[in-house]
Amino acid sequence: MCQSDSQLEAKITQWIRPDIRALSAYTVPDPSELIKLDAMENPYSWPKELLAEWLDLLKTVSVNRYPDPNADDLKIALRNSMGVPSNMDLILGNGSDELIQIILMAIAQPGRVVLSPHPSFVMYKMIAAYTNLKYIGVPLKNDYSLDLPGMKRAIQQHRPAVLFIAYPNNPSGNLFKREDILEILAISDGLIVIDEAYHAFANCSFMNNLSQHNNLLVMRTVSKMGLAGLRLGLLAGHKKWISEFDKIRLPYNINVLTQKSVEFALNHGTLFTQQSEKICDNRDQMFQQLNKIEGIIAYPSSANFILFRTPKGKSNLIFDALKSDGILIKNLGSTNSLLRDCLRVTVGTAEENKRFLLALSGIIQSQA
Amino acid sequence: MCQSDSQLEAKITQWIRPDIRALSAYTVPDPSELIKLDAMENPYSWPKELLAEWLDLLKTVSVNRYPDPNADDLKIALRNSMGVPSNMDLILGNGSDELIQIILMAIAQPGRVVLSPHPSFVMYKMIAAYTNLKYIGVPLKNDYSLDLPGMKRAIQQHRPAVLFIAYPNNPSGNLFKREDILEILAISDGLIVIDEAYHAFANCSFMNNLSQHNNLLVMRTVSKMGLAGLRLGLLAGHKKWISEFDKIRLPYNINVLTQKSVEFALNHGTLFTQQSEKICDNRDQMFQQLNKIEGIIAYPSSANFILFRTPKGKSNLIFDALKSDGILIKNLGSTNSLLRDCLRVTVGTAEENKRFLLALSGIIQSQA
Repeated sequence: MCQSDSQLEAKITQWIRPDIRALSAYTVPDPSELIKLDAMENPYSWPKELLAEWLDLLKTVSVNRYPDPNADDLKIALRNSMGVPSNMDLILGNGSDELIQIILMAIAQPGRVVLSPHPSFVMYKMIAAYTNLKYIGVPLKNDYSLDLPGMKRAIQQHRPAVLFIAYPNNPSGNLFKREDILEILAISDGLIVIDEAYHAFANCSFMNNLSQHNNLLVMRTVSKMGLAGLRLGLLAGHKKWISEFDKIRLPYNINVLTQKSVEFALNHGTLFTQQSEKICDNRDQMFQQLNKIEGIIAYPSSANFILFRTPKGKSNLIFDALKSDGILIKNLGSTNSLLRDCLRVTVGTAEENKRFLLALSGIIQSQA
Repeated sequence: MCQSDSQLEAKITQWIRPDIRALSAYTVPDPSELIKLDAMENPYSWPKELLAEWLDLLKTVSVNRYPDPNADDLKIALRNSMGVPSNMDLILGNGSDELIQIILMAIAQPGRVVLSPHPSFVMYKMIAAYTNLKYIGVPLKNDYSLDLPGMKRAIQQHRPAVLFIAYPNNPSGNLFKREDILEILAISDGLIVIDEAYHAFANCSFMNNLSQHNNLLVMRTVSKMGLAGLRLGLLAGHKKWISEFDKIRLPYNINVLTQKSVEFALNHGTLFTQQSEKICDNRDQMFQQLNKIEGIIAYPSSANFILFRTPKGKSNLIFDALKSDGILIKNLGSTNSLLRDCLRVTVGTAEENKRFLLALSGIIQSQA
């Protein structure tokens, strides 16, 4: 290492927070030419006429002007589409990720705790780290259901400022029991954020519970319904909470093309509802077929993906073999003891699912 | 206030940071049908053929897939267009705002200081507040030049972790002396971020100084060159700094339409260069004409806006009268003692500038 390199290292050590230095960046595998069944994307593209109508709309957009800082037109479309109660307010984020960051920045003080069932969406823990908050993960039970007594103990012990509940949960795909969540709501002093990212495939929601609880927020995204590329998340809640979060939202966080395009898509919501229904049908078929493969245990899912367990010690090998066969799924085997030997597959088109199931059967057979 | 309202208030007081509660949200006036000369936007739209070519490209974009988390193609176009040295790395943000937030989150520790000349871009101070850092503004001199002895004293006293220098400065429009900035760089222990948001109109840069300083970063945006609606900022610097910042960047922060559209625009850079040159010509004319109006003092600008001083105590009245005449500019009179009686106008099209100057002359005359 030359002198200038070591001086640069010294500067970085001096100024970057030690906990940030110790982190690794979140890496996303390069999908190149693979069949992508790793990221909970809707696999369907738009019909030609819709595409033409969308491009006609974009023609009228002024990319040289700053976007509407409040995205008022988009919010109207979201309220209608997502059934946001009229007495509740909305804040939008550049994906749910940004909303999680805004919530945590707004409450970040030394010693405060963020809590969620674990394993769950990885960003709760990661963004808690970015914002200097302590994260507590309360283990799920072996069947990925909520450990209610464990949750209650953890809430009493840690008094979390924010508790995230993914509903359905990622990566397990299940919906926790509604009455368990209501019980958690009743005993919690801090904020409860119900993350309904997979709502399009579950049709269960806490949106209509907002009025009854002054510490409840409901988060959604348009990513899984088919607009992952546009990056839009929304958080619904009491106006007084939302106005606090709005103070630290960067003023032009939703770009003009996302505003116009999501509004357009929601105004053609039937297509996306149909696509989601098709995905649910395909999921249910895939679930049955996965469980027919010897040695595979698939877990019931209310989302657009399925978690499954491979024969002991085989998940890495199966993941790699699928990749060699041109199919990218998600390897969770080393992330958490509850996920040992586990892989997660996103529901793709019928053809993609067939190729995945065929490849998986072949790999398992060649191992037997 | 009913009981449930007071309970909600109590929850908010309990959990939202007191400094956030005390903040007001950043408000943006509703431009409705006004001539917008308030926000440093490029006033020109795209020629028909370019628009058609852009829409043809968007037709190929998969909005259902997550964007490239590293935006590699866009980065190549930005490197070429912005002259980023090949040994330096890039990180992209959802506007410069997000990059400022990332830098400050990465260094945020109790007692640390963010410093900038003052008045300058308001987001340095605001985002320092969001990230729990102390902000120190070092007053500019009366002619908006840098107070070098004052800066040196403040640096020695506060040892800022990050020092932002807008080059040219907003809202004053001037370029600080290059040798002053180099002197600040030489004595500073912390990071120096040169914010070249208005580079398209100044053609002065510290990009080629990056290799000589291990604490220098250069920030740019595509907003002022004509793409404000797309929200893209970039930060160039040594790979080791950038990789630390990259750890807390939210993985999909640049949506797919922005990635494709900015790349497309940069590959048609001549148009934007020509538009910027036209804006510079119009600025220089506007500067001369403003100074011909009795009682108005316009300050020389290297950006796409002009700061000007109105007769004593008249800035609010003139701002309101312009608004009644259908022209929205920026009222800075109450933001800082150095800006008393000051307004800021963005350079628009020749026609818009003419209407603004005519309206302003009329208002001044009716006041005489």
